[in-house]
Amino acid sequence: MAEALRVGIAGLGTVGASVARVLVEKAAELTRQCGREIIVTAVSARDATRDRGVDLSSAKWFADPVELARSADIDVFVELIGGEEGPARASVTAALEAGRHVVTANKALLARHGVELAEIAEGKGILLNYEAAVAGGIPVIKTMREAMAGNTVSRVFGILNGTCNYILTRMEAEGLSFEDCLKDAQRLGYAEADPTFDIEGNDTAHKLSILTSLAFGNRIAAGDIYLEGISNITQADIRAASELGYRIKLLGVALRTESGIEQRVHPTMVPTASVIAQVHGVTNAVAIETDILGELLLSGPGAGGNATASAVVGDIADIAKSRPGFQHGPVFGRPAKELQPYRKARMRSHAGGYFIRLTVHDRVGVFAAVAGRMAENEISLESIVQHANGANPETQKTVILVTHETTEAAVRKAVEGITQDGHLVDKPQVIRIERAG
Amino acid sequence: MAEALRVGIAGLGTVGASVARVLVEKAAELTRQCGREIIVTAVSARDATRDRGVDLSSAKWFADPVELARSADIDVFVELIGGEEGPARASVTAALEAGRHVVTANKALLARHGVELAEIAEGKGILLNYEAAVAGGIPVIKTMREAMAGNTVSRVFGILNGTCNYILTRMEAEGLSFEDCLKDAQRLGYAEADPTFDIEGNDTAHKLSILTSLAFGNRIAAGDIYLEGISNITQADIRAASELGYRIKLLGVALRTESGIEQRVHPTMVPTASVIAQVHGVTNAVAIETDILGELLLSGPGAGGNATASAVVGDIADIAKSRPGFQHGPVFGRPAKELQPYRKARMRSHAGGYFIRLTVHDRVGVFAAVAGRMAENEISLESIVQHANGANPETQKTVILVTHETTEAAVRKAVEGITQDGHLVDKPQVIRIERAG
Repeated sequence: MAEALRVGIAGLGTVGASVARVLVEKAAELTRQCGREIIVTAVSARDATRDRGVDLSSAKWFADPVELARSADIDVFVELIGGEEGPARASVTAALEAGRHVVTANKALLARHGVELAEIAEGKGILLNYEAAVAGGIPVIKTMREAMAGNTVSRVFGILNGTCNYILTRMEAEGLSFEDCLKDAQRLGYAEADPTFDIEGNDTAHKLSILTSLAFGNRIAAGDIYLEGISNITQADIRAASELGYRIKLLGVALRTESGIEQRVHPTMVPTASVIAQVHGVTNAVAIETDILGELLLSGPGAGGNATASAVVGDIADIAKSRPGFQHGPVFGRPAKELQPYRKARMRSHAGGYFIRLTVHDRVGVFAAVAGRMAENEISLESIVQHANGANPETQKTVILVTHETTEAAVRKAVEGITQDGHLVDKPQVIRIERAG
Repeated sequence: MAEALRVGIAGLGTVGASVARVLVEKAAELTRQCGREIIVTAVSARDATRDRGVDLSSAKWFADPVELARSADIDVFVELIGGEEGPARASVTAALEAGRHVVTANKALLARHGVELAEIAEGKGILLNYEAAVAGGIPVIKTMREAMAGNTVSRVFGILNGTCNYILTRMEAEGLSFEDCLKDAQRLGYAEADPTFDIEGNDTAHKLSILTSLAFGNRIAAGDIYLEGISNITQADIRAASELGYRIKLLGVALRTESGIEQRVHPTMVPTASVIAQVHGVTNAVAIETDILGELLLSGPGAGGNATASAVVGDIADIAKSRPGFQHGPVFGRPAKELQPYRKARMRSHAGGYFIRLTVHDRVGVFAAVAGRMAENEISLESIVQHANGANPETQKTVILVTHETTEAAVRKAVEGITQDGHLVDKPQVIRIERAG
């Protein structure tokens, strides 16, 4: 049998401890699968004394993760520290430069410095694996990087943030407000004390930027993503969606258009009968559309210590199965040096259907004015519903429009026009509709 | 750059021609992804003159696939002939013995001879890849064999036959009979002239047996699977399922129980709100439950030239990325020599909920007799519905029972008892219910 693979883990929080436990508890099975032992030989964490439910007494302890990364005691450096700069970046860079394979779950680091790190890894002929960085336990990186070889991707989209999906699921199921669901999510540990990063879509954007690069062969451009969070979604939107046969999900969507790559994160209406509409709670899902395979959908746990650990262990096992001289595929599917500059499609050119909810004064001519603004911008309507169920049903009406395919520019102009006409009581709500099978 | 990978394709039907086309049309992209060229250097097919939409004039033609398999002109032998014996088995065996990597889409061959072929491949240190053999384009083999390293699987189940799912989907959507849907499926090329193999569940069983081996580390046992097809599913079942919040799917299910491994293929009621219930038409889906990851679901095209070709090309690309001296993981996840003998759980021990539809004479005491037989066998009921919508509503009634978890043995005994009581007008219908998220 080949020599044991020596693993160093930096960061022993929930995921790190879980990875160590799996490597110890499943050691015999992993050896059978990989043809060699996998041993945790070194670790780095702030507190060496805490009980993590696994015996790490034979592992060497490092106070400094960078020192661990460079140590001759390891073959693989597992970075579970987090953060796009600081010790995470320093230690991953050090490990790669020292010729150690790297496994990381750090989406922020990859979204920011992924291409540069991939160049180092590919230059050294070593592996940089990051399955856990996107959609937790779902093997979407392996699928796009390996299984889809030869496929040309046209669109990739998904539910990539469990916090948002948990909140939207409970809002729909229980009729609760966004604020109440967020509080519950915080109480249950599904949302951070400062939830901004999740609910405003930044976390989804980080993950999406990695999938986009794998899909289209461009350099990662996480900063160039159109962002809209879920904090302004109301019960009125959720009920109207349901009546129209839709469900609201926070999606990250990337597609190739004639004018460039469109990357966007926003609340989205998907058909209630679609597979992705049944993805509830903290579960994640990714759909990928290609020319050869067609449409593939993967759904599963997107977070949590164990699910994330499963992806990390899978990455480590892939390294264990490799041998010196083995050249894995490139980190982002194509060699990092050949990734194309990011060509951004303008959001104003986005084409699709729209849901528009307007609260208007109940007076003669309002309906005609709204319809006129739509016609003026060449927006054809699939349906118009008028409700008298607002806060003040005697003086206000709710008008809900669903458009056929049109452009973002046309919708923005039409809504501006309606606003200027002075009929609106409240801010207009605009939610994009996404095709989904 | 490394030397080109030389591919020989045996069988140029729909899938084979599609594989050749993808390798030629996506050559540049595949080279970028794999770090070396992939070239079709040899082919074998009955008709050398047919136009397959791809220029294969530079490939060497072999009349005999076994000769191609042994040829020094290839590094990889791609078997797309089909059939569990004959030229498929002979050529795959010859290729492995000659030290050529093999890629195959042949589920029947693997279900029957997979372990023996894996032993040859592992003995030679070469690869036997078969992603296309189960669920077409869905990367379930890669997921179970690689991504889930370290996970202990408790259950795997799925929609593995597009023909059956197409028929059931249309029966539900359009209220058509099984026979009419089958005829349409045949007309559209979704079903064979002799559809027995698909509709009686044999095809699903072949695929399931491979997933079972990957899940539980047992020797493949395709002959030991409990089989029930969809030909006796009626509109009455579909309507009753829908009323109760279920949808009927032909599932292959494998799980580990205390008394052994349960493998079964049968029409199954799954909750309408579950993800797998939304998998319509010829689409396939596989769900895998494990201790670490939790539940993962993959859905996508399960058949068709292009989708199958996508999986074959992915397998070839994995070989192209490997280098001499590289030791891939074992063919069925664990070394073939260490696969455990198959320990079969008795179907009578199967535990689960049941849907039972009875057509009874409309007379006093029938209901009490039915309820009595259930109680006698310690079957507790979740619901009882009585309908007067049978063929002869004046003299007959339909009784629909949904049980809480019970055993197959208890249900069989109860139904036998009811039959003996002489109240039944028609054959009783029993459909198992499966938990699904």
